[in-house]
Amino acid sequence: MQKVLIANRGEIAVRVIRACHDLGLQTIAVYSEADSEALHVLHADEAICIGEPPSQKSYLKIPNILSACEITGADAIHPGYGFLSENHSFASICESCGLEFIGPSAKAIQLLGDKARAKETAAKANCPIIPGSDGVVEDMEKAIREVEKIGFPVFIKATAGGGGKGIRISHSMEEFKKHFAAARAEAEVSFGNPNVYLEKMIVNPRHIEVQVLGDKFGNVVHIGIRDCTIQRRRQKLIEETPCPILSKEKIEEIGEAAVRVVREAGYYSAGTVEFLLDSEGRYYFMEVNTRIQVEHTVSEELADIDLIEQQIRVARGEPLPFTQKDITFSGHVIQFRINAEDPSHHFMPSPGKLEYYLPPGGPHVRVDSACYSGYVIPPNYDSMVAKLIVKGRTREEAIARAKRALREFHVGGIKTTIPFHLYMLEDPNFLRMNYDLNYIDKLIADGCRFTLD
Amino acid sequence: MQKVLIANRGEIAVRVIRACHDLGLQTIAVYSEADSEALHVLHADEAICIGEPPSQKSYLKIPNILSACEITGADAIHPGYGFLSENHSFASICESCGLEFIGPSAKAIQLLGDKARAKETAAKANCPIIPGSDGVVEDMEKAIREVEKIGFPVFIKATAGGGGKGIRISHSMEEFKKHFAAARAEAEVSFGNPNVYLEKMIVNPRHIEVQVLGDKFGNVVHIGIRDCTIQRRRQKLIEETPCPILSKEKIEEIGEAAVRVVREAGYYSAGTVEFLLDSEGRYYFMEVNTRIQVEHTVSEELADIDLIEQQIRVARGEPLPFTQKDITFSGHVIQFRINAEDPSHHFMPSPGKLEYYLPPGGPHVRVDSACYSGYVIPPNYDSMVAKLIVKGRTREEAIARAKRALREFHVGGIKTTIPFHLYMLEDPNFLRMNYDLNYIDKLIADGCRFTLD
Repeated sequence: MQKVLIANRGEIAVRVIRACHDLGLQTIAVYSEADSEALHVLHADEAICIGEPPSQKSYLKIPNILSACEITGADAIHPGYGFLSENHSFASICESCGLEFIGPSAKAIQLLGDKARAKETAAKANCPIIPGSDGVVEDMEKAIREVEKIGFPVFIKATAGGGGKGIRISHSMEEFKKHFAAARAEAEVSFGNPNVYLEKMIVNPRHIEVQVLGDKFGNVVHIGIRDCTIQRRRQKLIEETPCPILSKEKIEEIGEAAVRVVREAGYYSAGTVEFLLDSEGRYYFMEVNTRIQVEHTVSEELADIDLIEQQIRVARGEPLPFTQKDITFSGHVIQFRINAEDPSHHFMPSPGKLEYYLPPGGPHVRVDSACYSGYVIPPNYDSMVAKLIVKGRTREEAIARAKRALREFHVGGIKTTIPFHLYMLEDPNFLRMNYDLNYIDKLIADGCRFTLD
Repeated sequence: MQKVLIANRGEIAVRVIRACHDLGLQTIAVYSEADSEALHVLHADEAICIGEPPSQKSYLKIPNILSACEITGADAIHPGYGFLSENHSFASICESCGLEFIGPSAKAIQLLGDKARAKETAAKANCPIIPGSDGVVEDMEKAIREVEKIGFPVFIKATAGGGGKGIRISHSMEEFKKHFAAARAEAEVSFGNPNVYLEKMIVNPRHIEVQVLGDKFGNVVHIGIRDCTIQRRRQKLIEETPCPILSKEKIEEIGEAAVRVVREAGYYSAGTVEFLLDSEGRYYFMEVNTRIQVEHTVSEELADIDLIEQQIRVARGEPLPFTQKDITFSGHVIQFRINAEDPSHHFMPSPGKLEYYLPPGGPHVRVDSACYSGYVIPPNYDSMVAKLIVKGRTREEAIARAKRALREFHVGGIKTTIPFHLYMLEDPNFLRMNYDLNYIDKLIADGCRFTLD
């Protein structure tokens, strides 16, 4: 591997370029017409324009990316996250063109990208999945037997439903008996298909996820658990590691379950196994993200492992340089997503020119960003300004440092989520780790504007 | 301790403010009229103008600094480096005003600030000092006996000389016999005093230094050795740790010697014991710097210890939270001083406006700076733009990362020492660790302009 084309933009493109250069690899940036002033274009050794926005005409346009490889002589592609990163056809085309795809095999992406097959794989690997009926439940008698095994509350879901439609929740057997027939009737009317299945409802869940890393020789390790429960409309805003409410033994147990799942799929490279955690500490497999994630940084800082470097080493055929027992975790790390959004006005997007951009610094503060003073954030892409990552010996210390760093972060010309984060760092429930996946949405519904005083 | 006044400016003031805020302490910046747009003024909780440049009228004016404490209710002072940091009268005045001086005691500063007494202290602590005659040598017979003990090459120094004057070097007994009488005669003529003394000349020395840290209970530890041999006219330009040519055992031995010296002086807080290292691995005490140093950062990254935090904790009476055996070193760390100087023109100062300022980032890259895009570097103070600190698992990895980070460092509007550092990272002698204290000055004398092609 000599020349890596980074099929992405923004902070992750800059991040990958840095890792490549640290390893002495040449880099090629691709960019859309909206991104000619972007930092990844400045930092790469070569840069090629691959079309205009929106992404369908540039960052998602496979022929243009392959042409860029051809022109520049790139022999490897890092897909970053989003865009083509979980597109198994793209990975497969790279493989057949002799381009090293810096990620898992096309086969693993395809297997784990299919939610039903991913769930089967997890079950096969003896990893807890959300309990439910084994397929369609047609009559009341069978339904009662199933629900006695699953427990309450339980979802009755129309197989033909989706997107939140055709779902009923039952909290007791009495309620279930009423709902079951009604749900079938309703499904028949709404979707022309009365079939329903049952799934346990996880109450007040938290979102946790295991960072995994594997090589092409079948070695797989986990690099701890991230807690990403602070989300707005399923968009992560704060991520931390270790998960503050899990014991070391539990982290090890869940980590091992995640390793079993990806090993079952013949997985290599970096990946994430996502779980729901219920209020009694039970965990349930959700899905696998077959790519590097935005929040990989916190695991890097906790374990002192450069995940992008490891992705590249694995891609070029090196075995992992460590085993599970070599991996140690120290301290507590939190990432704050600084987005160009106005938290006091329903997180309305706020693109535009950064009149000034002064990130914080000092020991144990890391900022991953593609912004600079004078940069114009284009409206075409995601709204990320920067990821602020802080580390402390304890969660308390990390929080104190985060307050300092957020106050030191001066961004002019646009609105950002910095006030949201400063608010959260004073929020008693956040400090007490007393929140679930719906916490922020509930605060918003209650009229919270995330302003201090 | 509640409110810390930082009696300094530039990156070290910003660094101290960050450490204070991480500990939940309020901060007060002081600034001269030339520094109203400085970053330390922006980041502190309060800021007070203490006069105009030059420093004698502001940063060095003790009454103005004490007034600022009075006005703001500061109960502690961090002096940074330079300015008043090694002024024992200032430390003493702080003590008598009930202001906690975040540094060693006035007594320790005074003792170790006197070079002759510091040398005596080192000798008493059984730490090697540069061999020499015990005071004045008056006759040839005694001189020959002394020089037989000291060895060659040897300096014959006029007691009344100084600043490089009245010094002769002898490389053999034959030469010494000729020089001795001549040196006395010359001293008589030049200074009206024929007295001379002898001192061993350390050949091709390297500059190494031990970071020490002590508390008010007599606990003292060392935090490894920095090699600061890459200097221009006795100004450090590149500092690294561990010293690449010393074994772990030797580092431990020299570290222990340094600890003995400062313990002998009743020292607490952070400090540095400087040594010369000869080409055969022998080390000789030079002096103690009774303050935090510019290059403290590399030790912080190597040992994962926040030295400014520890200075503050020690000042408020906490014992060190670790013993020598708890301190572990990992990897290799190098600091590059990015100065506003033109290395291709004899390092001519290049103050002015930073048209743009884009520091590098990513894992294992730290930048300590008080600059930002649009900032005007005033001509009144030192020329530092930033300290770039990179870490790798090995020296080779740190060097590869440094190249990447230096290429990523974009500063517009002024000349900087970035090209010098990039040159050094290709220099075979630097890479092979084959250099001494005079190396850069020799390159300059040979017409080197530190440009790559």
